[in-house]
Amino acid sequence: MARFFETEEHLALLDVKNESSLKLMMEDEARVSALQLYAEGLTVDASRSLMTAEEWTKLCALYEHTGVSAKLEAMFKGDKVNFTEKRAVGHAALRQGTPDNKFVVDGHDYAPDVAEVKGRIYKFAESVREGKYVGFTGKKLDTVVCIGIGGSYLGIEFVHEALRTYVPTSGQDPATGRKLRFLANVDPIDSRRALEGLCAETTLVVVASKTFTTAETMLNAKTVREWVLDHYKYTSKDEAGVIGKHFCAVSTNIPACKAFGIKEENIFGFWDWVGGRFSVCSSVGLVPLSLQYGEQVVEEFLGGCRAIDQHVYSNRDKPQTNLAALMALVSFYNASYKNLDCVAILPYCQSLLRFPAHIQQLLMESNGKKAVVAAEGYEAYPGATTERYSGEIYFGEPGTNGQHSFYQLVHQGRVVPCEFIGFTQSQNPVHIKDCPISHDELMSNFFAQPDALALGKTREQLQQENCPEELIPHKTFSGNRPSVCLLFDGALTPAAVGKLLALYEHRVAVEGFLWGINSFDQWGVELGKVLAKNVGAVLKQIREGVPQEKAQSNANLPLPTRKLLERYVAN
Amino acid sequence: MARFFETEEHLALLDVKNESSLKLMMEDEARVSALQLYAEGLTVDASRSLMTAEEWTKLCALYEHTGVSAKLEAMFKGDKVNFTEKRAVGHAALRQGTPDNKFVVDGHDYAPDVAEVKGRIYKFAESVREGKYVGFTGKKLDTVVCIGIGGSYLGIEFVHEALRTYVPTSGQDPATGRKLRFLANVDPIDSRRALEGLCAETTLVVVASKTFTTAETMLNAKTVREWVLDHYKYTSKDEAGVIGKHFCAVSTNIPACKAFGIKEENIFGFWDWVGGRFSVCSSVGLVPLSLQYGEQVVEEFLGGCRAIDQHVYSNRDKPQTNLAALMALVSFYNASYKNLDCVAILPYCQSLLRFPAHIQQLLMESNGKKAVVAAEGYEAYPGATTERYSGEIYFGEPGTNGQHSFYQLVHQGRVVPCEFIGFTQSQNPVHIKDCPISHDELMSNFFAQPDALALGKTREQLQQENCPEELIPHKTFSGNRPSVCLLFDGALTPAAVGKLLALYEHRVAVEGFLWGINSFDQWGVELGKVLAKNVGAVLKQIREGVPQEKAQSNANLPLPTRKLLERYVAN
Repeated sequence: MARFFETEEHLALLDVKNESSLKLMMEDEARVSALQLYAEGLTVDASRSLMTAEEWTKLCALYEHTGVSAKLEAMFKGDKVNFTEKRAVGHAALRQGTPDNKFVVDGHDYAPDVAEVKGRIYKFAESVREGKYVGFTGKKLDTVVCIGIGGSYLGIEFVHEALRTYVPTSGQDPATGRKLRFLANVDPIDSRRALEGLCAETTLVVVASKTFTTAETMLNAKTVREWVLDHYKYTSKDEAGVIGKHFCAVSTNIPACKAFGIKEENIFGFWDWVGGRFSVCSSVGLVPLSLQYGEQVVEEFLGGCRAIDQHVYSNRDKPQTNLAALMALVSFYNASYKNLDCVAILPYCQSLLRFPAHIQQLLMESNGKKAVVAAEGYEAYPGATTERYSGEIYFGEPGTNGQHSFYQLVHQGRVVPCEFIGFTQSQNPVHIKDCPISHDELMSNFFAQPDALALGKTREQLQQENCPEELIPHKTFSGNRPSVCLLFDGALTPAAVGKLLALYEHRVAVEGFLWGINSFDQWGVELGKVLAKNVGAVLKQIREGVPQEKAQSNANLPLPTRKLLERYVAN
Repeated sequence: MARFFETEEHLALLDVKNESSLKLMMEDEARVSALQLYAEGLTVDASRSLMTAEEWTKLCALYEHTGVSAKLEAMFKGDKVNFTEKRAVGHAALRQGTPDNKFVVDGHDYAPDVAEVKGRIYKFAESVREGKYVGFTGKKLDTVVCIGIGGSYLGIEFVHEALRTYVPTSGQDPATGRKLRFLANVDPIDSRRALEGLCAETTLVVVASKTFTTAETMLNAKTVREWVLDHYKYTSKDEAGVIGKHFCAVSTNIPACKAFGIKEENIFGFWDWVGGRFSVCSSVGLVPLSLQYGEQVVEEFLGGCRAIDQHVYSNRDKPQTNLAALMALVSFYNASYKNLDCVAILPYCQSLLRFPAHIQQLLMESNGKKAVVAAEGYEAYPGATTERYSGEIYFGEPGTNGQHSFYQLVHQGRVVPCEFIGFTQSQNPVHIKDCPISHDELMSNFFAQPDALALGKTREQLQQENCPEELIPHKTFSGNRPSVCLLFDGALTPAAVGKLLALYEHRVAVEGFLWGINSFDQWGVELGKVLAKNVGAVLKQIREGVPQEKAQSNANLPLPTRKLLERYVAN
């Protein structure tokens, strides 16, 4: 197969010096129809991206040439698309979103295993929620502290915050009287913050670590273990009884969990084909979310994910109608052809306040790479060399907060592609007499900002408004700044949260396939870990009285670090 | 005065194609000593920035040539350095950090006015904290809801989160029994979240808006007003009495506050020379922070700011010993000469979790601009044209969270200059028996990550470790990735919070002076506001029954927006 970048089409694409005006392109009916897709109760509007109608056609051809469809198919069916770690990639299987709900790895179909674990989780959660499974002193466990980091934290926190103010149409809040907290950072202060005001007797601790060896998580788990035991120290010496009641685990390492004191029936597993940042729909997310919100809400959430899984799979060879492909191609175009590599995620919904942090992890850990592989069937993106970078940098804040924070730069500084997320209804309207705040007020901003970015404001317009000449350079807006809008029908329901999650997960994969990288490994985090252990060993020796000079003699630390450590130790 | 970019030195600087290895440069004693500064109990270590010793010398010369020292002096003394809005810039005056504690604008010294307002705030706060000033039904006001947005929100939230787990050496937590909440976003859900579980009878509301017309803040203020009145509706019809007791204001618009029902003695003013994002030390921050933490903590915080103000002022013509100048020059060099325009802020302290959001606002709203001015005395930075951008994009997460989120990209993807922030002591060590978490554990990461970025890992090293050939491209680290480390002596005390705040404030100003922009205006947020009003008017008409076609006929909305609005209205 010829590399696409040697073909005429591609050279034309690379050469593009498109100076077209967004203002004009946004009035082209055919282009707008092509770039404003609707499916599964969700509009993705990419008509304010910088590409022309022709470029869009070429990008769709590129999608075909790089074999994204086959790669998606391989992923959904259980092939080992995580080729550096020789693992399948199965987040769609966790929500029955694979074709015919089958997910076969090395000849074994995991769909029944997924269903079995999910059933156990729901049963356990229901029992805790109903007060049948109780704490060591027989009290109802109304509080959950979830210990995890990275993929065992950010995604669940995003979903939890998104659902915190959700009330089903029944009007019955499924989380009434319950608390869910997270403990992630390996900072003594974080444990204090997480445990503040909690009572050990009514607290259930979930320890989430695939290997049950993640350094940060195990340190925090041991800390909370001491906190729980400390509470019981005057009333009971039955350590095993206390820990057995108050701890459960999400892990694949059953022996280590048991050694910690967790009972086998309270360990919920998953599989090596679930990557950390893609693990929200595995036990990692399902245990805390089921405990907090119950089975029905979680099922609705998984249903939303599944709807998008099925949409993406059935449109895998049609980027023209595939929401995830549209988003991926726009991003790929911005990053690799327009050098626009820093993207803002802007949800106009306060409940999505932690969505940008989750996306930051999902996209930057998956695609923030460089190596361009030439493994069989994985072709590098056109023009790529090992010197090109792939994924973009992501940041964001919810809605109008962001406007009062960094929109100055976004409108008049460096060009930052924006992704606006909005809903046709409010998740939870305030019922206050004469309340002046309406969802329309919020959404006026959602509709206006993308246009302000795209259209700008010219010197001539300012002159017509009699703007003083010396202020004109400061009040001019260049326009032509790209963005994508996501508009959901209805409110931020559990199903909508699921759709949002799955849409971004698949968009990440498609982008990675286009670039020819492996989106599912994360070798880049290893070196820091090794060096931190190195410094940790030096510090340990110093604390034990070994002089700094001697303690660091084998550690090979550079000069600035030696000097900083001197000051650190002196204080 | 010749423009610096026409001189030989500058041409050399611009031409620089420095391929020096950080590994080597980090062992150059003279260079490391020059780039690792210590002052006011704080080390700024820029020895891992990409500049050579020679470049540093040239950048210091550039600092001199662009007249930064004179501009700083003008700012500290009360000159109208915000030249597009014709205003002075006085955040240093708010903490008595100006020379001889004088701040003279248009012939008037504001220092006594600052002291007077501060005195009134402390008195009011003390009275509330002691339960002398009480709510309408005589109950102690133990909860404060702070309504503001942007500059009236992010900075205060950062300081509040930073101090939340601080305990003075006395061991007496000054915030015991008190709650402080924020309401910023104009989203019905945000009011619900902010008011959740609160009782109106024990709640004091602070409305922070300079003009008392900020759209988002006024909508939220009116909503909370209704919430409070709703609580009293069965017990009292005395609206004026209720509002008078439960609301106070931070504003310069006394008539509007009084019209809202706020008593004149409960209005705390400030001045037009306090910019929103620089307003933490004005009434905007002092009212909520004094209520929550009391006068002593706030005074320590202001003292920290003042120490840095005085350091920066007295070193204004010595970039070689000026912490803020060093940080600014490194950033300026990265952004304008190395095209590294996206910076990560990485505090290794969980209490600084909202610091990145504050910095995002402070830096991106101040310097995210384009216009390069040639006003008298303000010289554009060398080589600048109106087509060059100034400020960088900022994002971040605290410590080890970030490591498990976006460090993959930071180590192996696009080059992201990092700013690491650490402390020699923990703010609040956990006192749990056998607690395995230590501050050293956290700080090992703080020391290791900058070195991992700078030094990288080569193919040869991997080969020595017998890494399989096919994994080598994936496990290689390029190294040569720049960072700056800030290491504070001691813990995150109120004084340290103040130092951190003031250091970044002055670094912003110095960067702006180098670029020749006005860091103190924000014209870039205007256009979105205007267009949002436009859409709001269309929506209002549609809600009143006017057909969409007709409602939008004068609004001049582009095609994609008209189509999105159709779907919005239909739902």
